[in-house]
Amino acid sequence: MTDPIKSAIRVLGIDPGSRLMGFGMVSKNGTKLTTSGYGTLKFNTKVEANERLIEIYDGVRALLEKFKPDHVAIEKVFFAKNVVSALKLGQARGVAVLAVAQAGIPIYEYSPNEIKLSTVGFGHADKIQVAKMVRLLLGVENFESADSSDALAIAICHLQTHQFRRNLPRGAEL
Amino acid sequence: MTDPIKSAIRVLGIDPGSRLMGFGMVSKNGTKLTTSGYGTLKFNTKVEANERLIEIYDGVRALLEKFKPDHVAIEKVFFAKNVVSALKLGQARGVAVLAVAQAGIPIYEYSPNEIKLSTVGFGHADKIQVAKMVRLLLGVENFESADSSDALAIAICHLQTHQFRRNLPRGAEL
Repeated sequence: MTDPIKSAIRVLGIDPGSRLMGFGMVSKNGTKLTTSGYGTLKFNTKVEANERLIEIYDGVRALLEKFKPDHVAIEKVFFAKNVVSALKLGQARGVAVLAVAQAGIPIYEYSPNEIKLSTVGFGHADKIQVAKMVRLLLGVENFESADSSDALAIAICHLQTHQFRRNLPRGAEL
Repeated sequence: MTDPIKSAIRVLGIDPGSRLMGFGMVSKNGTKLTTSGYGTLKFNTKVEANERLIEIYDGVRALLEKFKPDHVAIEKVFFAKNVVSALKLGQARGVAVLAVAQAGIPIYEYSPNEIKLSTVGFGHADKIQVAKMVRLLLGVENFESADSSDALAIAICHLQTHQFRRNLPRGAEL
Protein backbone atom coordinates (compact mmCIF):
# COMPACT_ATOMS: atom_id res chain seq x y z
CA MET A 1 0.00 0.00 0.00
CA THR A 2 1.13 3.51 -0.73
CA ASP A 3 1.53 5.92 2.11
CA PRO A 4 -1.67 8.03 2.02
CA ILE A 5 0.31 11.09 3.05
CA LYS A 6 2.55 10.77 -0.01
CA SER A 7 -0.19 10.00 -2.53
CA ALA A 8 -2.60 12.75 -3.63
CA ILE A 9 -5.04 13.82 -0.96
CA ARG A 10 -8.08 15.77 -2.04
CA VAL A 11 -9.25 18.30 0.53
CA LEU A 12 -12.31 20.50 0.40
CA GLY A 13 -11.94 23.64 2.49
CA ILE A 14 -15.13 25.29 3.70
CA ASP A 15 -15.50 28.79 5.09
CA PRO A 16 -19.01 28.64 6.52
CA GLY A 17 -21.54 31.46 6.73
CA SER A 18 -25.30 31.90 6.71
CA ARG A 19 -25.32 34.09 3.58
CA LEU A 20 -22.11 33.15 1.82
CA MET A 21 -20.10 29.96 2.06
CA GLY A 22 -16.64 29.85 0.52
CA PHE A 23 -15.33 26.57 -0.81
CA GLY A 24 -12.01 25.50 -2.27
CA MET A 25 -10.76 22.14 -3.42
CA VAL A 26 -7.01 21.54 -3.11
CA SER A 27 -4.99 18.42 -3.86
CA LYS A 28 -1.46 17.70 -2.80
CA ASN A 29 0.71 15.36 -4.78
CA GLY A 30 4.17 15.12 -3.27
CA THR A 31 4.77 18.73 -2.37
CA LYS A 32 2.72 20.14 -5.23
CA LEU A 33 -0.54 21.86 -4.40
CA THR A 34 -3.22 22.28 -7.07
CA THR A 35 -6.79 23.45 -7.01
CA SER A 36 -9.57 21.85 -9.01
CA GLY A 37 -12.24 24.38 -8.10
CA TYR A 38 -13.25 27.14 -5.75
CA GLY A 39 -16.02 29.65 -5.34
CA THR A 40 -18.74 30.95 -3.11
CA LEU A 41 -22.18 29.54 -2.50
CA LYS A 42 -24.59 32.45 -2.18
CA PHE A 43 -27.74 31.65 -0.27
CA ASN A 44 -31.03 33.30 -0.97
CA THR A 45 -31.54 35.82 1.81
CA LYS A 46 -35.05 36.50 0.53
CA VAL A 47 -36.26 33.15 1.83
CA GLU A 48 -36.73 32.61 5.53
CA ALA A 49 -33.74 31.46 7.57
CA ASN A 50 -35.16 27.96 8.05
CA GLU A 51 -35.48 27.40 4.31
CA ARG A 52 -31.96 28.70 3.88
CA LEU A 53 -30.66 25.88 6.06
CA ILE A 54 -31.98 23.44 3.44
CA GLU A 55 -30.11 25.40 0.74
CA ILE A 56 -26.88 25.26 2.76
CA TYR A 57 -27.24 21.53 3.42
CA ASP A 58 -28.05 20.77 -0.22
CA GLY A 59 -25.22 23.06 -1.34
CA VAL A 60 -22.63 21.23 0.74
CA ARG A 61 -23.93 17.85 -0.40
CA ALA A 62 -23.59 19.00 -4.01
CA LEU A 63 -19.97 20.06 -3.37
CA LEU A 64 -19.17 16.66 -1.83
CA GLU A 65 -20.80 14.94 -4.79
CA LYS A 66 -18.90 17.08 -7.31
CA PHE A 67 -15.43 17.09 -5.75
CA LYS A 68 -15.44 13.80 -3.85
CA PRO A 69 -12.93 15.02 -1.25
CA ASP A 70 -11.02 12.60 0.99
CA HIS A 71 -11.18 15.10 3.83
CA VAL A 72 -12.99 18.30 4.61
CA ALA A 73 -11.30 21.14 6.49
CA ILE A 74 -13.32 23.86 8.15
CA GLU A 75 -12.51 26.88 10.27
CA LYS A 76 -12.98 26.65 14.02
CA VAL A 77 -15.00 29.66 15.06
CA PHE A 78 -14.31 31.49 18.29
CA PHE A 79 -15.49 34.93 17.41
CA ALA A 80 -18.74 36.53 16.32
CA LYS A 81 -20.08 40.07 16.53
CA ASN A 82 -22.63 39.01 19.14
CA VAL A 83 -24.63 36.06 20.41
CA VAL A 84 -27.30 36.36 17.71
CA SER A 85 -24.65 36.37 14.95
CA ALA A 86 -22.96 33.39 16.62
CA LEU A 87 -26.25 31.48 16.69
CA LYS A 88 -26.89 32.17 13.00
CA LEU A 89 -23.37 31.20 12.05
CA GLY A 90 -23.66 28.11 14.27
CA GLN A 91 -26.86 27.05 12.50
CA ALA A 92 -25.23 27.38 9.07
CA ARG A 93 -22.05 25.65 10.21
CA GLY A 94 -24.05 22.89 11.90
CA VAL A 95 -25.93 21.86 8.77
CA ALA A 96 -22.72 22.05 6.69
CA VAL A 97 -20.90 19.79 9.18
CA LEU A 98 -23.93 17.48 9.33
CA ALA A 99 -23.82 16.99 5.55
CA VAL A 100 -20.11 16.09 5.71
CA ALA A 101 -20.49 13.81 8.75
CA GLN A 102 -23.42 11.97 7.15
CA ALA A 103 -21.28 11.36 4.07
CA GLY A 104 -18.71 9.69 6.33
CA ILE A 105 -15.95 12.10 5.30
CA PRO A 106 -13.50 13.02 8.07
CA ILE A 107 -13.65 16.68 9.09
CA TYR A 108 -10.69 18.57 10.45
CA GLU A 109 -10.96 21.91 12.16
CA TYR A 110 -8.38 24.66 12.30
CA SER A 111 -8.25 27.95 14.15
CA PRO A 112 -7.76 31.18 12.18
CA ASN A 113 -4.23 31.42 13.61
CA GLU A 114 -3.32 27.90 12.49
CA ILE A 115 -4.61 28.72 9.00
CA LYS A 116 -2.58 31.94 8.78
CA LEU A 117 0.50 30.30 10.22
CA SER A 118 0.44 27.47 7.68
CA THR A 119 -0.12 29.70 4.64
CA VAL A 120 1.57 33.04 5.33
CA GLY A 121 3.96 31.84 8.03
CA PHE A 122 2.74 33.90 10.92
CA GLY A 123 -0.47 33.75 12.92
CA HIS A 124 -1.53 37.37 12.72
CA ALA A 125 -1.49 37.84 8.95
CA ASP A 126 -4.40 39.78 7.46
CA LYS A 127 -6.86 38.50 4.84
CA ILE A 128 -5.01 40.20 1.97
CA GLN A 129 -1.74 38.50 2.89
CA VAL A 130 -3.54 35.15 3.11
CA ALA A 131 -5.16 35.65 -0.31
CA LYS A 132 -1.82 36.66 -1.83
CA MET A 133 -0.08 33.57 -0.47
CA VAL A 134 -2.93 31.31 -1.63
CA ARG A 135 -2.54 32.78 -5.15
CA LEU A 136 1.19 32.10 -5.09
CA LEU A 137 0.87 28.56 -3.70
CA LEU A 138 -1.81 27.53 -6.20
CA GLY A 139 -0.82 29.66 -9.18
CA VAL A 140 -4.24 31.25 -9.32
CA GLU A 141 -4.62 34.77 -10.70
CA ASN A 142 -7.63 36.11 -8.90
CA PHE A 143 -10.46 35.12 -6.63
CA GLU A 144 -13.94 36.47 -7.04
CA SER A 145 -14.23 36.72 -3.29
CA ALA A 146 -12.35 36.55 -0.01
CA ASP A 147 -14.58 33.63 0.97
CA SER A 148 -13.09 31.36 -1.67
CA SER A 149 -9.48 32.31 -0.88
CA ASP A 150 -10.20 31.73 2.81
CA ALA A 151 -11.65 28.32 1.99
CA LEU A 152 -8.59 27.44 -0.12
CA ALA A 153 -6.36 28.57 2.76
CA ILE A 154 -8.20 26.21 5.11
CA ALA A 155 -7.67 23.31 2.69
CA ILE A 156 -3.99 24.24 2.31
CA CYS A 157 -3.61 24.44 6.09
CA HIS A 158 -4.93 20.90 6.37
CA LEU A 159 -2.68 19.60 3.62
CA GLN A 160 0.40 21.30 5.08
CA THR A 161 -0.17 20.09 8.64
CA HIS A 162 -2.06 16.85 8.15
CA GLN A 163 0.83 14.47 8.79
CA PHE A 164 1.33 16.03 12.21
CA ARG A 165 -2.29 15.87 13.23
CA ARG A 166 -4.79 13.17 13.88
CA ASN A 167 -8.52 13.43 13.46
CA LEU A 168 -10.26 15.41 16.18
CA PRO A 169 -10.16 13.52 19.47
CA ARG A 170 -13.41 11.89 20.50
CA GLY A 171 -15.43 14.32 22.54
CA ALA A 172 -13.78 17.39 21.01
CA GLU A 173 -16.07 20.37 20.98
CA LEU A 174 -17.03 22.50 17.97
CA MET B 1 -63.85 22.19 5.35
CA THR B 2 -63.50 22.58 9.09
CA ASP B 3 -61.66 25.56 10.44
CA PRO B 4 -58.14 24.28 11.16
CA ILE B 5 -57.93 26.51 14.23
CA LYS B 6 -61.04 24.90 15.73
CA SER B 7 -60.15 21.29 14.92
CA ALA B 8 -57.37 19.54 16.84
CA ILE B 9 -53.92 20.87 16.07
CA ARG B 10 -50.94 18.74 17.00
CA VAL B 11 -47.89 20.75 17.99
CA LEU B 12 -44.44 19.48 18.84
CA GLY B 13 -42.50 21.85 21.09
CA ILE B 14 -38.72 21.63 20.96
CA ASP B 15 -36.28 23.09 23.46
CA PRO B 16 -32.99 22.68 21.60
CA GLY B 17 -29.58 22.03 23.09
CA SER B 18 -26.33 20.33 22.11
CA ARG B 19 -26.43 17.82 24.99
CA LEU B 20 -30.10 17.67 25.90
CA MET B 21 -33.13 18.42 23.76
CA GLY B 22 -36.53 18.68 25.43
CA PHE B 23 -39.60 17.75 23.42
CA GLY B 24 -43.29 17.87 24.17
CA MET B 25 -46.31 17.04 22.06
CA VAL B 26 -49.49 18.99 22.79
CA SER B 27 -52.86 18.90 21.04
CA LYS B 28 -55.66 21.39 21.38
CA ASN B 29 -59.24 20.39 20.73
CA GLY B 30 -61.55 23.32 21.31
CA THR B 31 -60.01 24.81 24.41
CA LYS B 32 -58.77 21.51 25.80
CA LEU B 33 -55.03 20.92 25.83
CA THR B 34 -53.66 17.39 26.07
CA THR B 35 -50.20 15.92 25.77
CA SER B 36 -49.45 12.69 24.00
CA GLY B 37 -45.79 12.53 24.95
CA TYR B 38 -42.83 14.45 26.25
CA GLY B 39 -39.28 13.80 27.31
CA THR B 40 -35.66 14.66 26.77
CA LEU B 41 -33.32 13.41 24.08
CA LYS B 42 -29.91 12.92 25.65
CA PHE B 43 -27.05 13.02 23.19
CA ASN B 44 -23.88 11.07 23.65
CA THR B 45 -21.27 13.58 24.79
CA LYS B 46 -18.59 10.87 24.52
CA VAL B 47 -18.72 11.07 20.71
CA GLU B 48 -17.24 14.04 18.93
CA ALA B 49 -19.44 17.09 18.37
CA ASN B 50 -19.74 16.43 14.63
CA GLU B 51 -21.10 12.92 15.20
CA ARG B 52 -23.51 14.34 17.77
CA LEU B 53 -25.07 16.52 15.07
CA ILE B 54 -26.11 13.31 13.28
CA GLU B 55 -27.69 12.05 16.53
CA ILE B 56 -29.61 15.31 16.95
CA TYR B 57 -30.82 15.28 13.34
CA ASP B 58 -31.87 11.62 13.53
CA GLY B 59 -33.49 12.22 16.93
CA VAL B 60 -35.66 15.05 15.61
CA ARG B 61 -36.60 13.03 12.53
CA ALA B 62 -37.66 10.15 14.79
CA LEU B 63 -39.84 12.54 16.84
CA LEU B 64 -41.52 13.86 13.68
CA GLU B 65 -42.10 10.29 12.51
CA LYS B 66 -43.55 9.22 15.86
CA PHE B 67 -45.76 12.23 16.65
CA LYS B 68 -46.61 13.48 13.16
CA PRO B 69 -47.11 17.08 14.32
CA ASP B 70 -48.96 19.64 12.21
CA HIS B 71 -46.62 22.36 13.43
CA VAL B 72 -43.37 22.59 15.32
CA ALA B 73 -42.73 25.35 17.85
CA ILE B 74 -39.21 26.20 18.97
CA GLU B 75 -37.70 28.79 21.22
CA LYS B 76 -36.06 31.83 19.70
CA VAL B 77 -32.64 32.16 21.26
CA PHE B 78 -31.17 35.53 22.11
CA PHE B 79 -28.94 34.60 24.96
CA ALA B 80 -25.96 32.33 25.53
CA LYS B 81 -23.15 32.32 28.07
CA ASN B 82 -20.64 33.30 25.39
CA VAL B 83 -19.94 33.12 21.67
CA VAL B 84 -18.64 29.54 21.80
CA SER B 85 -21.78 28.37 23.65
CA ALA B 86 -23.92 30.26 21.14
CA LEU B 87 -22.14 28.56 18.24
CA LYS B 88 -22.66 25.11 19.77
CA LEU B 89 -26.29 25.81 20.51
CA GLY B 90 -26.69 27.25 16.99
CA GLN B 91 -25.24 24.07 15.45
CA ALA B 92 -27.65 21.86 17.41
CA ARG B 93 -30.60 24.14 16.71
CA GLY B 94 -29.67 24.36 13.03
CA VAL B 95 -29.77 20.61 12.42
CA ALA B 96 -33.03 20.31 14.40
CA VAL B 97 -34.64 23.07 12.31
CA LEU B 98 -33.23 21.52 9.12
CA ALA B 99 -34.93 18.19 9.92
CA VAL B 100 -38.28 19.95 10.44
CA ALA B 101 -37.92 22.16 7.36
CA GLN B 102 -37.00 19.17 5.18
CA ALA B 103 -40.14 17.39 6.39
CA GLY B 104 -42.16 20.38 5.15
CA ILE B 105 -43.64 21.07 8.60
CA PRO B 106 -44.18 24.76 9.43
CA ILE B 107 -41.97 26.02 12.24
CA TYR B 108 -43.00 28.82 14.57
CA GLU B 109 -40.59 30.57 16.86
CA TYR B 110 -41.33 32.25 20.18
CA SER B 111 -39.22 34.31 22.51
CA PRO B 112 -38.83 33.20 26.14
CA ASN B 113 -41.04 36.12 27.20
CA GLU B 114 -43.82 35.15 24.80
CA ILE B 115 -43.68 31.59 26.14
CA LYS B 116 -43.88 32.72 29.77
CA LEU B 117 -46.62 35.23 29.00
CA SER B 118 -48.81 32.63 27.31
CA THR B 119 -48.41 29.99 30.01
CA VAL B 120 -47.95 31.78 33.34
CA GLY B 121 -49.48 35.11 32.33
CA PHE B 122 -46.48 37.33 32.76
CA GLY B 123 -43.23 37.56 30.83
CA HIS B 124 -40.77 37.32 33.68
CA ALA B 125 -41.96 34.10 35.31
CA ASP B 126 -39.25 31.67 36.42
CA LYS B 127 -38.80 28.08 35.24
CA ILE B 128 -40.56 26.63 38.29
CA GLN B 129 -43.65 28.76 37.69
CA VAL B 130 -43.67 27.72 34.04
CA ALA B 131 -43.39 24.01 34.96
CA LYS B 132 -46.18 24.36 37.54
CA MET B 133 -48.51 25.99 35.05
CA VAL B 134 -47.69 23.39 32.38
CA ARG B 135 -48.59 20.66 34.92
CA LEU B 136 -51.89 22.37 35.67
CA LEU B 137 -52.79 23.00 32.03
CA LEU B 138 -52.02 19.45 30.91
CA GLY B 139 -52.91 17.55 34.10
CA VAL B 140 -49.45 16.03 34.26
CA GLU B 141 -48.03 15.09 37.65
CA ASN B 142 -44.32 15.41 37.17
CA PHE B 143 -41.68 15.93 34.55
CA GLU B 144 -38.43 14.10 34.58
CA SER B 145 -36.67 17.30 33.52
CA ALA B 146 -37.07 21.03 33.03
CA ASP B 147 -36.28 20.49 29.33
CA SER B 148 -39.50 18.59 28.73
CA SER B 149 -41.68 21.09 30.63
CA ASP B 150 -40.03 23.92 28.70
CA ALA B 151 -40.74 22.11 25.42
CA LEU B 152 -44.38 21.59 26.43
CA ALA B 153 -44.60 25.30 27.35
CA ILE B 154 -43.35 26.22 23.85
CA ALA B 155 -46.04 23.99 22.28
CA ILE B 156 -48.71 25.49 24.55
CA CYS B 157 -47.54 28.99 23.66
CA HIS B 158 -48.02 28.22 19.99
CA LEU B 159 -51.46 26.69 20.54
CA GLN B 160 -52.62 29.61 22.68
CA THR B 161 -51.43 32.31 20.31
CA HIS B 162 -51.58 30.59 16.91
CA GLN B 163 -54.78 32.21 15.67
CA PHE B 164 -53.18 35.62 16.13
CA ARG B 165 -49.98 34.78 14.35
CA ARG B 166 -49.00 33.86 10.88
CA ASN B 167 -46.03 31.77 9.88
CA LEU B 168 -42.70 33.55 10.12
CA PRO B 169 -42.42 36.23 7.45
CA ARG B 170 -40.17 35.42 4.54
CA GLY B 171 -36.68 36.59 5.28
CA ALA B 172 -37.14 36.35 9.04
CA GLU B 173 -33.90 35.71 10.81
CA LEU B 174 -33.13 32.86 13.22
